[in-house]
Amino acid sequence: MAEIEEIEIVEVKQKQPPGKEVRIGIVGYGTVGRATAEILAGNAEEIRRRTDGISIRVTRACRRTRKEERTPQGVVLVSDWEKVVTADDVDIVVEAIGGTQVAREVARSSIEHGKAVVTANKALIAQFGEELFALADAQGVPIGIEATVGGGVPIIRAMAEALAADRIQAVYGIVNGTANFILTQMEAHGMQFDEALKQAQAAGYAEADPSLDIDGLDARDKISILARLAFNASLSLAQIPVTGIRQIAATDFHYARRLDSTIRLVASAERNALGISVSVGPWLVDRDSMLAKVDGANNAIFLSGEKVGTQMFYGRGAGGGATGTAVLSDVVQIAKHLARGQRVPNGLPGFHKPEQLTLAERQQPVNWYLRLTVRDHPGILARVADAIAREDINIDSVIQEPHMAKDRLSFVITLEPVGEVVVRRAVEAINGFEFMLEPVLVLPVTSSC
Amino acid sequence: MAEIEEIEIVEVKQKQPPGKEVRIGIVGYGTVGRATAEILAGNAEEIRRRTDGISIRVTRACRRTRKEERTPQGVVLVSDWEKVVTADDVDIVVEAIGGTQVAREVARSSIEHGKAVVTANKALIAQFGEELFALADAQGVPIGIEATVGGGVPIIRAMAEALAADRIQAVYGIVNGTANFILTQMEAHGMQFDEALKQAQAAGYAEADPSLDIDGLDARDKISILARLAFNASLSLAQIPVTGIRQIAATDFHYARRLDSTIRLVASAERNALGISVSVGPWLVDRDSMLAKVDGANNAIFLSGEKVGTQMFYGRGAGGGATGTAVLSDVVQIAKHLARGQRVPNGLPGFHKPEQLTLAERQQPVNWYLRLTVRDHPGILARVADAIAREDINIDSVIQEPHMAKDRLSFVITLEPVGEVVVRRAVEAINGFEFMLEPVLVLPVTSSC
Repeated sequence: MAEIEEIEIVEVKQKQPPGKEVRIGIVGYGTVGRATAEILAGNAEEIRRRTDGISIRVTRACRRTRKEERTPQGVVLVSDWEKVVTADDVDIVVEAIGGTQVAREVARSSIEHGKAVVTANKALIAQFGEELFALADAQGVPIGIEATVGGGVPIIRAMAEALAADRIQAVYGIVNGTANFILTQMEAHGMQFDEALKQAQAAGYAEADPSLDIDGLDARDKISILARLAFNASLSLAQIPVTGIRQIAATDFHYARRLDSTIRLVASAERNALGISVSVGPWLVDRDSMLAKVDGANNAIFLSGEKVGTQMFYGRGAGGGATGTAVLSDVVQIAKHLARGQRVPNGLPGFHKPEQLTLAERQQPVNWYLRLTVRDHPGILARVADAIAREDINIDSVIQEPHMAKDRLSFVITLEPVGEVVVRRAVEAINGFEFMLEPVLVLPVTSSC
Repeated sequence: MAEIEEIEIVEVKQKQPPGKEVRIGIVGYGTVGRATAEILAGNAEEIRRRTDGISIRVTRACRRTRKEERTPQGVVLVSDWEKVVTADDVDIVVEAIGGTQVAREVARSSIEHGKAVVTANKALIAQFGEELFALADAQGVPIGIEATVGGGVPIIRAMAEALAADRIQAVYGIVNGTANFILTQMEAHGMQFDEALKQAQAAGYAEADPSLDIDGLDARDKISILARLAFNASLSLAQIPVTGIRQIAATDFHYARRLDSTIRLVASAERNALGISVSVGPWLVDRDSMLAKVDGANNAIFLSGEKVGTQMFYGRGAGGGATGTAVLSDVVQIAKHLARGQRVPNGLPGFHKPEQLTLAERQQPVNWYLRLTVRDHPGILARVADAIAREDINIDSVIQEPHMAKDRLSFVITLEPVGEVVVRRAVEAINGFEFMLEPVLVLPVTSSC
């Protein structure tokens, strides 16, 4: 009798060619994931008309702590993300779980299974973007990141495509809607920081742990992505100086008003003589400027190109509608390629084989706003003025609100234009004085934009 | 002896596969054509780095009344545009001659020769866009029109790609830099219209025949393109009501200031209950609004999506640098596809097999500014007020500057919110009065944006 060899049964997974139907799997079914599914369902017909017949639908979604079921729309709901990223009936994975640990695994695994990834997760891209794009390049699948910065504002597309032929000099603006909401509440109602933060939490803008927003870390992640695109080079997050808005007090808005100004948290990346400087921190901005007009949870991003001049992009920076629309702009673009059977290009500048940027201090001399909080006694102004004079800095004005308590008195000194390094030296000296109750609040002043 | 058949010598034009080099032919070597060539030459290395190695260079350019020659950079300069559009060493034709007659032939012929077309010519696309896109679809070549609206501001891309999944409710804004320059000069310096126009001509913003800009025809062409993209349907230019800015006088800026407002030429397309309304005309806008902040030759375009909310795009609306950058954004995107040997998708919504839009009057009740110029005598206000009351419209305020000449007196009536059709009926009655020296200037009032 002939020996029967053991036959290995190979299951050939017949991958359905996407053709005119493109199938979406969503991992994380919170605000962004659900909004993405809802907008897609509501506008499926419109998308079909605009794309000359491509049908895009959600086939699978993963959410926490639920049993598997199928919605009336035919979406299979699972609790294990691997059942989305490995599924045969998913062409594009929308990663919407947030955080960086599991999100990174989800993205990696999706790419390894040959699926395109679209994400709104700025922390993921800021920290692991390079690794993920390298993997995606190797696998020949695209990653869409339009939703990572500016909510629905198409800033990623503008930088990657619209200014493809220009040399970008600077990108800066308001990229964190929560911090902007807090600052504009303080501005409009004379609130203290803590009260405005509570309002932001009540309005659903700020998390229970608001640190990412108010300490500038979310803005740092976003500006790092914009800086990569602008300067086509990588940079490490740890190198970016970040100041949040916890130190801003109601009194600063009083002083700002006397200076025809207000305060905004600005993230900025710009070329200067020594290299690229990237930073996040509150600025004093002219009340007539466009930055000052950005209120509530809105975003505004300025882009300066050598040839194109300065452009501004303004809109809702967060929320399911804006973010979902941005996610879907990537989904639709990728779907168009898939439906034509084309490989989708990746090649986002700054993520694809980037050089490493060396960051430089901001060089350009600007005016400065220093707010000092002191236990008052005679001679304070003389000693402060002396510390400033030692660095050869000219004082522009000294302002003090009347009727303040002697044991905790705030006053403001504005400085004529000088570079940051010099100001920091003077401030370091002042911070050492025994009458200082807290470190000087140091805000650069801009009158432009 | 065997008969020798006549052999037809077929010259097989070996079309060089574009590979990593993409070659540009420019037709029209004025401001835009030259800027495009210069930016491309100056940033070739940057483009190569950003596109992962694609080299884009100008091989041919056509300009008027010059003999053929070759520049030091190897560009062949010709005087006959057919030598550009039929050349084997041209993959993409940049149409930059302006006008619509020859430009249409250039575009058609380029497409028929299998070449992609990129243009900044809004009149061409507004009038013949549908025909050209149909031809391009049939030939499988793309047309790039980013530069037709908003100068370097990537509004075409935003509408075609970024909001691909949203339902657009409205697109409106300042799209003609010349008219805006004139209005902001009048506002800032109390100038009369004629003087401001002369300054615009001296500054190189206005043509010797400024009609396209100041009569709103350029803005009409642009809003017709935006309306097509927004509503995915075609519309005829003749249907769009257009009012220019010739009737705006220095006195209107005085009155506007008293109303905490200023005047801007706004092009607008929006959904309302009856359909889509599209118009071009001057508006009275709040001095604190973003529209009022747009000065000089800048553009600002607002885009309202159902889900994404209202976004604004702001930047230089004209000039070689901005327009050339926009032209090159299309060139680079097409070049990326060509370099991969991919067919480039066309399919701009509203140009590709569009339905026909039926335009409706603007429905939304708004406030109105009416400026009347009269030969003064007793009883005028009573008769005007009566004509307004007959249409059931409430007067909000009547303003008259002191010390005006009796034989030519201007005053302003502002109206409470009412629809346009009703206001026009009242105005028609007023225009019939014998004391009217010129037709009423009718401006809608907006306090938003």
